[in-house]
Amino acid sequence: MQNNVAELVDTLIVEDLSEKDINRALSDLEPEEVALALESLPLDQRMQVWETIKEEERLDIFVELRGEARALILRELGEDQIDLLFKDMEAEDLLEIDDTLPDRLVDIALKRMNKKQQEYYQQANTYDDDEVGHWIDHDILIASQSIRVSEALRLLKKEISEYSDVIYLVNRTGRWVGCVKFHSLIAAQPHINISELMVEDYPFLTASTDVVKSADAVERSGHIALPVLDDNQTLLGRFDIGSAMEILRETSEGQLMSTAGLNEESDLFAPVKRSARTRGLWLGINLLTAFMASAFIGIFEATLQQVVALAVLMPVVASMGGIAGSQTLTLIVRGLALGQITRSNLFSLLDKELRVGGLNGMVWAVVIGIISAWWFDSFALGCVIGLAIIVNIIMAALSGVLIPVLLDKLKIDPALSGSVILTTVTDIVGFVAFLGLGTLFLI
Amino acid sequence: MQNNVAELVDTLIVEDLSEKDINRALSDLEPEEVALALESLPLDQRMQVWETIKEEERLDIFVELRGEARALILRELGEDQIDLLFKDMEAEDLLEIDDTLPDRLVDIALKRMNKKQQEYYQQANTYDDDEVGHWIDHDILIASQSIRVSEALRLLKKEISEYSDVIYLVNRTGRWVGCVKFHSLIAAQPHINISELMVEDYPFLTASTDVVKSADAVERSGHIALPVLDDNQTLLGRFDIGSAMEILRETSEGQLMSTAGLNEESDLFAPVKRSARTRGLWLGINLLTAFMASAFIGIFEATLQQVVALAVLMPVVASMGGIAGSQTLTLIVRGLALGQITRSNLFSLLDKELRVGGLNGMVWAVVIGIISAWWFDSFALGCVIGLAIIVNIIMAALSGVLIPVLLDKLKIDPALSGSVILTTVTDIVGFVAFLGLGTLFLI
Repeated sequence: MQNNVAELVDTLIVEDLSEKDINRALSDLEPEEVALALESLPLDQRMQVWETIKEEERLDIFVELRGEARALILRELGEDQIDLLFKDMEAEDLLEIDDTLPDRLVDIALKRMNKKQQEYYQQANTYDDDEVGHWIDHDILIASQSIRVSEALRLLKKEISEYSDVIYLVNRTGRWVGCVKFHSLIAAQPHINISELMVEDYPFLTASTDVVKSADAVERSGHIALPVLDDNQTLLGRFDIGSAMEILRETSEGQLMSTAGLNEESDLFAPVKRSARTRGLWLGINLLTAFMASAFIGIFEATLQQVVALAVLMPVVASMGGIAGSQTLTLIVRGLALGQITRSNLFSLLDKELRVGGLNGMVWAVVIGIISAWWFDSFALGCVIGLAIIVNIIMAALSGVLIPVLLDKLKIDPALSGSVILTTVTDIVGFVAFLGLGTLFLI
Repeated sequence: MQNNVAELVDTLIVEDLSEKDINRALSDLEPEEVALALESLPLDQRMQVWETIKEEERLDIFVELRGEARALILRELGEDQIDLLFKDMEAEDLLEIDDTLPDRLVDIALKRMNKKQQEYYQQANTYDDDEVGHWIDHDILIASQSIRVSEALRLLKKEISEYSDVIYLVNRTGRWVGCVKFHSLIAAQPHINISELMVEDYPFLTASTDVVKSADAVERSGHIALPVLDDNQTLLGRFDIGSAMEILRETSEGQLMSTAGLNEESDLFAPVKRSARTRGLWLGINLLTAFMASAFIGIFEATLQQVVALAVLMPVVASMGGIAGSQTLTLIVRGLALGQITRSNLFSLLDKELRVGGLNGMVWAVVIGIISAWWFDSFALGCVIGLAIIVNIIMAALSGVLIPVLLDKLKIDPALSGSVILTTVTDIVGFVAFLGLGTLFLI
């Protein structure tokens, strides 16, 4: 994918390409790759290329774009162009993109759909977008549990969609009773009842299950898709391993972006004002915490004036705490995500992290103490910074365990806000410990 | 998965559980879940539970453990216990774990395998572990391209492994010629030649392809597995979507852990000394950069002594640069991973990021300038910090684009080392700009 996208970007970015050149460059590529390449173009060139893409290919690419990139294209399109773009939209497409569309456009898209697709859309919206019921695929083979193998074989002569290897069996009231693998039909006698071939204990999902957990379940099951049922066991559709992988990819991308206060919908070439505004929020939050730390430093103004070495060294104390704390935090956040951390092992974990912190604190206190004592030719300063390092690294271990656990209890995602809170703590503790000890012993 | 693991942890952590209790708690769970739960137990309890797991289930769980957890268990096992554990190991298992095993144990495991498995292992090792050839699955249905449909149907009466929906066809010399879907056999006349049913243009992988790119390729193909060929087109095996998902999961976990200088093999309850040592490296690297920043502050000792407000406010300047820079860095690292950033759009991107930086720099310079001027009752100080913020946020944008691009060119993973280098730059630029301007205008 990487190489295809990079090549395509290099081709498309040349100005004044003819329509023919562009369409030749796009042929043989997946909509996802074209979408990534479009996002890699500055906005004016992006629109130029967009307009030369064949009409029938535009929708697939549009759906694959990130939310922000989609919004930027929509802004440039006239009413009739949007109408044309939405012509063949299906429920699944609209569900992917509706959170970035104004209601007016959702209505336009819905009106263009046939009844079946409208129903699918409405049904999906009875579930939240973090429930698997919102992301159901309806393109499946369903049969009554009472048919014979010969009848089932006829079903398989139709075109089969991606990730399909079973027929879903239902009873008269539409309740799911089990699955039959395609290949088990091959060996079977044509006159026997199909339900004799059902896989035993075939796993299933309930529509209200969390979508990330559903993706895990599909992966672990070893099956390429699992049936999704409502609370009455009625078969709604399926959730396949392709969707599971997409969910996993989006989740992990979202986590990485959120460490910088961004989200995975961010566009590489979003307009300057828009980017500045969305990023400004995170800068503002950080500014508050930075001023809080400054306020604590301010308490020790008189000390700083007398022992200026403290001002020179104070960032060392703060940053060592920050690094040690984020190591613990990262380990705990991963453990929480995997369900590995519970009330029962929390204390052992805290105990272990405090020991690791204590040991690392002492080792680095000695190293930093010696360097500082030699640099400023003051044994007392070496002792003060050493002590401050120990205090801050131990506090960092404590915070690294307790902050994410507490946030998790409060249903706040610790991956997002954990590190801001943690570094605020380690900054403040670091400054106060170092400057406080300095005030006591160096003046 | 989350819930299962958490429940299991709560059950297992109770001391003096009987063997029966433990085995009841473990029944119905996947090896992966048991492995996660084991890692959630302090070391002594972990060994207690381990010893009560049924012998025939131990290997699967052992393979699922993280590297560090595996090493900790091996340390406790005697020679004969290891021999017993490795009894039924296959090439695929050994390939998963051999990087954490001493050579002696790899030899023991190899000796216990049959010839076929030994060959698979040796063949896999002719490829690096970042090439898909290292991770090939051999459990596939292969047939000659010249057989009839009726003969192929007989193949399907055997047990079929996970993620299988095609027969791989080869010519006389073992070269892969194409794939036939199980379900297309059903509708076919029994006497026709199987090669008439081949899917056109079925995609394939070359064994030396990067494994992450291979996982992408499997996902995008819409197939549940792709054949893997050597340079002579000989069919070596396949790479399926389950393995692709595992690669994706490990890669994203590795990225998240690496932001804290950890790796994904880290154990929650690794022994204290061992943890302290592995984390110490990252603390050491950070210490170097922190002392570098201190050295730059040290240049301005005389200034700090006269204007102590500079010492109080200097962390604000550094951290605003760090946050702004890491936002740009994160966006660029993602773009590089997806192949979206090339030489051709680098300049436009830099231009856009500098504008965003300039705009955000000016906005926050005014805010911070006003607060600082009011706090220390000095208009000049407000101007100095405002200017320093603008300089640092613009430098942060520049570094946020150029550092990852440069690292990528040097084949160094920008996700790992990018943020350390970036914050070093923003710290130093922030301190020097602020204290330097302070020296010029406030004294």
